[in-house]
Amino acid sequence: MLKLKVKKIKISTGNVLVAVMNISDSQFYDLYNGDRIKIENSNGENITTFLDITNSDELVPKGTIGIFEDTTRHINIKQGESVTISAQKKPDSITFIKKKLAGKKLSYEEFYSIIKDISNNRLSDIEITYFVAACYTHELNDKETVDLTKAMINTGESLHFGHRLVLDKHCVGGVAGNRTTMMVVPIIAAAGYLMPKTSSRSITSAAGTADTVEVLCNVTFSIDQMKKVISKTNACLAWGGALKLAPSDDKIIKVESPISLDPTGQLLASILAKKKSVGANVLLIDIPVGRGAKIEDLSEAKALKSKFKNIAKKLGMKIKVVITDGSSPIGKGIGPALEARDVLWTLSNDPRGCKDLREKGMDLAIKLLKLAGESKAKKKVSELIESGKAYEKFIEIIRAQGGKEVHASDIKLGKNSLDIRASESGTITFIDNKFVNRVARIAGAPTDKEAGIYLHIRKGDIVSKGQKLFTIYSNSLEKMDYANEYVKKHFGIEIRSSDPLFNKV
Amino acid sequence: MLKLKVKKIKISTGNVLVAVMNISDSQFYDLYNGDRIKIENSNGENITTFLDITNSDELVPKGTIGIFEDTTRHINIKQGESVTISAQKKPDSITFIKKKLAGKKLSYEEFYSIIKDISNNRLSDIEITYFVAACYTHELNDKETVDLTKAMINTGESLHFGHRLVLDKHCVGGVAGNRTTMMVVPIIAAAGYLMPKTSSRSITSAAGTADTVEVLCNVTFSIDQMKKVISKTNACLAWGGALKLAPSDDKIIKVESPISLDPTGQLLASILAKKKSVGANVLLIDIPVGRGAKIEDLSEAKALKSKFKNIAKKLGMKIKVVITDGSSPIGKGIGPALEARDVLWTLSNDPRGCKDLREKGMDLAIKLLKLAGESKAKKKVSELIESGKAYEKFIEIIRAQGGKEVHASDIKLGKNSLDIRASESGTITFIDNKFVNRVARIAGAPTDKEAGIYLHIRKGDIVSKGQKLFTIYSNSLEKMDYANEYVKKHFGIEIRSSDPLFNKV
Repeated sequence: MLKLKVKKIKISTGNVLVAVMNISDSQFYDLYNGDRIKIENSNGENITTFLDITNSDELVPKGTIGIFEDTTRHINIKQGESVTISAQKKPDSITFIKKKLAGKKLSYEEFYSIIKDISNNRLSDIEITYFVAACYTHELNDKETVDLTKAMINTGESLHFGHRLVLDKHCVGGVAGNRTTMMVVPIIAAAGYLMPKTSSRSITSAAGTADTVEVLCNVTFSIDQMKKVISKTNACLAWGGALKLAPSDDKIIKVESPISLDPTGQLLASILAKKKSVGANVLLIDIPVGRGAKIEDLSEAKALKSKFKNIAKKLGMKIKVVITDGSSPIGKGIGPALEARDVLWTLSNDPRGCKDLREKGMDLAIKLLKLAGESKAKKKVSELIESGKAYEKFIEIIRAQGGKEVHASDIKLGKNSLDIRASESGTITFIDNKFVNRVARIAGAPTDKEAGIYLHIRKGDIVSKGQKLFTIYSNSLEKMDYANEYVKKHFGIEIRSSDPLFNKV
Repeated sequence: MLKLKVKKIKISTGNVLVAVMNISDSQFYDLYNGDRIKIENSNGENITTFLDITNSDELVPKGTIGIFEDTTRHINIKQGESVTISAQKKPDSITFIKKKLAGKKLSYEEFYSIIKDISNNRLSDIEITYFVAACYTHELNDKETVDLTKAMINTGESLHFGHRLVLDKHCVGGVAGNRTTMMVVPIIAAAGYLMPKTSSRSITSAAGTADTVEVLCNVTFSIDQMKKVISKTNACLAWGGALKLAPSDDKIIKVESPISLDPTGQLLASILAKKKSVGANVLLIDIPVGRGAKIEDLSEAKALKSKFKNIAKKLGMKIKVVITDGSSPIGKGIGPALEARDVLWTLSNDPRGCKDLREKGMDLAIKLLKLAGESKAKKKVSELIESGKAYEKFIEIIRAQGGKEVHASDIKLGKNSLDIRASESGTITFIDNKFVNRVARIAGAPTDKEAGIYLHIRKGDIVSKGQKLFTIYSNSLEKMDYANEYVKKHFGIEIRSSDPLFNKV
């Protein structure tokens, strides 16, 4: 048995767990870079990490083992304490990854083994990459996708509500603004149905639903805290990242992003596993399509729609998939505070609310209620909005999540603002989602919750030269300057001249 | 432009180049984990690295950029100096990797772009993994394999000898001992042909050819130093790792090893690129097959043989592939010093030499000479060995590489030795290559050049109980103990009882 003294290294790699050994020690026990080793302390507690080997006697002297902060979060280990090192075999899941790479089908048990090891940091990024590549080159069939989804559900935590209907919605994304979730959840909950909604933070957009809700209240809960909110209000608006639903998902996404790979089987499993984990059995999926959206091609959207339906049915969910217009932003504000303000105005029937957000939110709520078997869905939704009951439910959820009622006009925006005006007169023919998101991000969103942009115009509006198109908000003058610079270089709003002479081709 | 102060971090990661930024700085410029950034110093020198983002203000405070030792080896950068950071686009080669993942064929230019970026550390391990996975799931056809080989050649350095014949040999490996290269090179060079041989160090075996030659002389040369040795002696016995032939190869092998993947196209390209890079145009490939060898299955060996022939011919090389018996070690010593001693004894016709090493070495030399067009190859090889001319050539090469003539019996072995004896009488029916290598490695080989094991018996020998089977040598008593423990648990030599009663089934 190899005994080494612990040398703590004050760095968090954020990666899989790694311990570092001096080359002279690793050679002694015939250990190689990337091998798995078990580190056992004197109390018999142990942890398995990957091995890194160093030539540097300064970093890790002979006789010591370097332990990063990530590892010390999982095991009690003291500086200088003597630990026992032993080699560990590769997990079985590697065999299954190779099997899939060779083009064979995997069973539920095999997917479970892989997903369990990913969740528990037992596979390296390189090994996970082979799994993703295998699922991309040998596309998962429906049975495999269902099995992968179940494996993701069963390696994480779940909510259970007995035989009750549990409603959920999901948007494939790519449209700036588009905070329909914050419209739909209070409507559905006010209608008496359960909707335990989890959402993500922004990855490349200016705000995710979780970032926006966070302007008004807390969104970071444990499963138990989330249950309390739901039992009070029928619903919640929580950040999914804090819960342990399908924990393998983030690690898979991490190796997909360098080459922007998103195998359909994994996309479906990732979304449906999270829905199933909160107990959802009635699900509405929104696929926005159009120029500048994530999915630009209608036939691609239709293919995805049919796959969603197949897999969700096999998982015992009632599902409806709608393909919507994703070619322009929805709502006027882009950035957490601006989007939260839009939602408050719209839900409370304030004239400053957004017509498109109201219409899309209500339409999705009607479709979801119909799917749940509600006969007079349209009438019910109109009543809930117009009577202010949906707004009241929203405030009820905000309070249950530790917030207080805030009036839309009290929401603070970035202390600096800059108006961008039309350089010519004409009709607005295109507002690029990516441009809008990018400007809001450069201004500081979503970290600076008060940063973002506010659109004064919609697609189809007629503007005259010098008219305000949008306002940029930021708390940093430096960021504002950079956003202004970016706008000048990459302007993403198309104005078609209203002078008919210019439009003759 | 983002200006940050350099904070040097005294760690060598040994990985692709990475710089670390505080999360507040990365958000400012909308940079993500894994993005590529260009770091430019005040002299206008620049380097592109991958970005890591940290939450730790202790590791990398806001306003600074953490630079690891790996990066400071490539650019002149001072502690505290102000550098300019800018975002870099992903290289085109990522598009080609995705193309191959999608099952399409790649052109020479596309392979070249990928291999060039791998060689220059412009692709991350995850990105290289996708390339390897793509080549495994969508097997390269002959044209692609040739193009990949040419890309590997053209991204590294090369030797050129005009129109002269340049001979080379390669063994696919897996057989313990088996130092035939050290037999063949001096024979071929003594016969008047060019043989600029590069070899590897051990990866999982007890000694590679480079480790063994290093017992007698230097093996680490630049291309220019290697040329001098060749012009003096017609040959060399150099370590390939120090040269810049096909530099992408090591990086590809690094991501293959975690799941032991070895796509045939890449295996062929890796071997043939290194041969073409030293100018070889006459090539003998040895594929050892048998129980305990790297390739255990004859049909697999035959398939590999046919692929080698196809690709080498398309690269303009004369090639012969031989399938040999790989079921037992070749030679008696396992470990650098022990193997070097075997070669000296065998080449100098000492009775302590190894019959199998002599026979296999001579046979390979004859086949290689015949392939080069030599009519009386067999007679010539016998003469060169028996006259001692091959031995003289060997000493000439050793001297040209900075060594001096050493007598076999002067070679130092580990100061501790331990005899392992037969526990029963019978016939030796199997000596497991992997067992033999493992014991020698545990004893300290190849780092401790004097460690290893010496076999006193061959397959087919009849032994009586208590007779010496092999001797373990080591400079460390601790390692010797562990090797002895290992031998007791995992004994890998099969003795079939010579008492006929025992063998009746």
